[in-house]
Amino acid sequence: MFESLQLKHKVDKAAYEAEEPLLRERLIDNQLELLEKPTFPVIVLLTGMDALGRGAAAKQLLSWLDPRHVRPYAMMRPSEEELERPRMWRFWRALPPKGQVGLFLNAWYEGPTREYFLGNIKRGQFRDHIEENLRFEELLAHEGALFLKFLFLLPKEQSLKGVEESRKGRTGAWKLSRDEVEIAEQFAKNYKKTISAVEELVTATSRTHAPWIPLPSADARYRDLTIGRTLADAIEERLKASKRPLSMGGTSAMVGDTGANVLDSLDLNKSLTRETYRARLKQARNRLTRTTLSKKFEKRALVALFEGNDAAGKGGSIRRVVEALDPRMVQVVPIAAPSDEEKAQPYLWRFWRHMPRLGHITIFDRSWYGRVLVERVEKFCSEADWMRAYEEIRAFESEMSDYGIIVVKFWLAIDKKEQLRRFKEREAVGYKRYKITNEDWRNRKKWAAYTQAVHDMVERTSTSRVPWTLVEANDKYHARVKVLETINERLKESL
Amino acid sequence: MFESLQLKHKVDKAAYEAEEPLLRERLIDNQLELLEKPTFPVIVLLTGMDALGRGAAAKQLLSWLDPRHVRPYAMMRPSEEELERPRMWRFWRALPPKGQVGLFLNAWYEGPTREYFLGNIKRGQFRDHIEENLRFEELLAHEGALFLKFLFLLPKEQSLKGVEESRKGRTGAWKLSRDEVEIAEQFAKNYKKTISAVEELVTATSRTHAPWIPLPSADARYRDLTIGRTLADAIEERLKASKRPLSMGGTSAMVGDTGANVLDSLDLNKSLTRETYRARLKQARNRLTRTTLSKKFEKRALVALFEGNDAAGKGGSIRRVVEALDPRMVQVVPIAAPSDEEKAQPYLWRFWRHMPRLGHITIFDRSWYGRVLVERVEKFCSEADWMRAYEEIRAFESEMSDYGIIVVKFWLAIDKKEQLRRFKEREAVGYKRYKITNEDWRNRKKWAAYTQAVHDMVERTSTSRVPWTLVEANDKYHARVKVLETINERLKESL
Repeated sequence: MFESLQLKHKVDKAAYEAEEPLLRERLIDNQLELLEKPTFPVIVLLTGMDALGRGAAAKQLLSWLDPRHVRPYAMMRPSEEELERPRMWRFWRALPPKGQVGLFLNAWYEGPTREYFLGNIKRGQFRDHIEENLRFEELLAHEGALFLKFLFLLPKEQSLKGVEESRKGRTGAWKLSRDEVEIAEQFAKNYKKTISAVEELVTATSRTHAPWIPLPSADARYRDLTIGRTLADAIEERLKASKRPLSMGGTSAMVGDTGANVLDSLDLNKSLTRETYRARLKQARNRLTRTTLSKKFEKRALVALFEGNDAAGKGGSIRRVVEALDPRMVQVVPIAAPSDEEKAQPYLWRFWRHMPRLGHITIFDRSWYGRVLVERVEKFCSEADWMRAYEEIRAFESEMSDYGIIVVKFWLAIDKKEQLRRFKEREAVGYKRYKITNEDWRNRKKWAAYTQAVHDMVERTSTSRVPWTLVEANDKYHARVKVLETINERLKESL
Repeated sequence: MFESLQLKHKVDKAAYEAEEPLLRERLIDNQLELLEKPTFPVIVLLTGMDALGRGAAAKQLLSWLDPRHVRPYAMMRPSEEELERPRMWRFWRALPPKGQVGLFLNAWYEGPTREYFLGNIKRGQFRDHIEENLRFEELLAHEGALFLKFLFLLPKEQSLKGVEESRKGRTGAWKLSRDEVEIAEQFAKNYKKTISAVEELVTATSRTHAPWIPLPSADARYRDLTIGRTLADAIEERLKASKRPLSMGGTSAMVGDTGANVLDSLDLNKSLTRETYRARLKQARNRLTRTTLSKKFEKRALVALFEGNDAAGKGGSIRRVVEALDPRMVQVVPIAAPSDEEKAQPYLWRFWRHMPRLGHITIFDRSWYGRVLVERVEKFCSEADWMRAYEEIRAFESEMSDYGIIVVKFWLAIDKKEQLRRFKEREAVGYKRYKITNEDWRNRKKWAAYTQAVHDMVERTSTSRVPWTLVEANDKYHARVKVLETINERLKESL
């Protein structure tokens, strides 16, 4: 691989000066067209050897583009807030909205590669991180992102020379940290090993929706023009294309009524007497309080999500959980219609942004499962979209779990008769907070479709590390106690 | 003051149990009504002695309210990202949007009070922080926020007892940090001094729009019911009120055509030859590169904002600045219509959210001055709103400046003839990025009104620490060089 490295890639000054102004005009025009009807973000990755060259190229690109619609990103050292969240959080946080260009230096490949190269992490962990990267890119591509992953490559001599120059401080506007100089030196000195590592990485991480673009970067003019041209071509091509390039995903044969439903096995009428309820609730609450205030919990975090039929009692259960918690560590996030900033991002973005820090707790009232429940049933997204969501969600929850976040998921189930009783009761009481809307009645008519969606969801996303807990909720006492006791159990297992 | 501390404030169990469910119903109803038509946020501060009591009260309040629409906030230790920004950033960041309740423990009064009490800061700095608090509250109140500032008060014996209990770990669900226990102990032991400090604070910081509510907190039932009732009453009162309670602000007599205009004194035709331009631009660019990469800059930050007539060349100037900067440290923020999340917050919020970290640079293409320019001229806000903005903006810029952020402000001025020439030129060229819209032509008709607004703005917001730089921009060469050289000068003075 990378035989082209041996070829001479050079652009002379005259040719450069002839092309540059036209290219800039094209790029600006593309950017504006993209902004006018923002349908996708552009993600440019500058990765590979040649830290100096990457920096210089980023500078050049930023000066060609209109910098007001570019989000440059470079992980120097992750901040404390970033370190207290799963690795990918900082990249989710830095994503450009639709219509804008994200310019990533030192992004998701650099960290694992460096740590692996320096022997700080083992091969297994390295592969796990690469897998996270791939899933991240795939999800974004599915949501429409246009990827340009440039892989900077230098022949051996140049790579040594670059290191020397940075040591001497001849870096132009580009400042390399001591770490960066050191790693560049390591790379250059172990050139053969580096190239083979890069080959391995490229083999593992090139995908049609996010391919690597090898870039011999020794000649600055060649390097910058190539990046500019490739970017302009790609944006133009995509703007012309009428639809998203990536539409894989399964067929509806993957899911569907198999006769049996996981909800069927539940005895929805499980109940507790008032006395038992009071005693067990108090006990569970105290236990939850103690556990979340314990030393051990400081290095972990909890995400609890609540889904369920309308009027199943999610709010009441959430309240019983919150009551047990130090208000300084808990945040309750109700999921309703997304804000316009959220709409300009992939659907998981609005959940990533509420990721708790270590020692903290986020409770979601409805969640990312909306994708495979309401969005599926109401056809708010395409079949391919909700189909792939099962996988994306499993990966998302794994990332949290790998990082040490305890994820607890509840489906509160009532039967159709009980729902009707509660709807009527609420209409009679007339408290504002119990208001039954037309939408509630409409949803009720789709009971069977929702039941099927719940079955498929549980089937596909209940894993041994992040299982679903189905809560029989015709009796509120039983439901609330089960919720609290389940959280306690999961915390006990995990701490 | 605080004579009521000597009175017995007690609620017996029966009375409490009779009132509590009704109060809860009221609070929930209020919350929902607030959410239905979100016109203002509610900001509840629990401050004062009695750390344990504050925690317990917050817990109780959170369990009465619907926690999904409450943003609890408690500064434990500020995070690194918070420490790298002005002190108020963390509170701006935690503000509830309109329609929601912010529940603040350990908020903006605790830090300065503690530091002052412990002798870590001098009286002068303490007063500065208090001043920041006041301006913050005033701005929020002007924007509609409903404030409830509860001041917890304990008689001497109880305050000592509380400390003892926390030491023993008998804190219920409430965990006090070692710092908190220590400070509570200091407070209790120096009870007289504490009370007189609290009196002083209250005297300095009680305002009609954000009054202190002294709360004898020894009896938990009395304490919680009082908070709940006061909150419910205040929300109901405000919901009934047809308009914002605070509408101070000056009269239009404050500003207006005085015959002379600061813009008149400019020679808009200042120009440079192409050769001089190239040489000075290169020099200024190199200098800017060096300065921003210097060790000294790492502990500072730069905010540069650009305002100017339409077609005055803001974009081109910004590009020349960005070209000199390490792309990893710069962010360009174009200010257009606010997103819906931004609309749910006070107008300065969207600028606070882009506050650079130390060692970083934010460039605003248009800025908070929109308030006294376009919003004034187009009557997007009331006269009182833009009148008070002069003061609010001065305070905002002082806060940045006090923290060490270098703020540079440019007005790019062209004359009416030059604007017409550029508009026509742009229409002829037809590049997308030069598109002249109907709005541009409309704005042009209001030339005189804008000129007056610019004059008033410069008059009122050019301070010795954060001066305006008026840039003669009929000649682009001159304008760009002046911009870069001014930034260099300001950096030199400040570093």
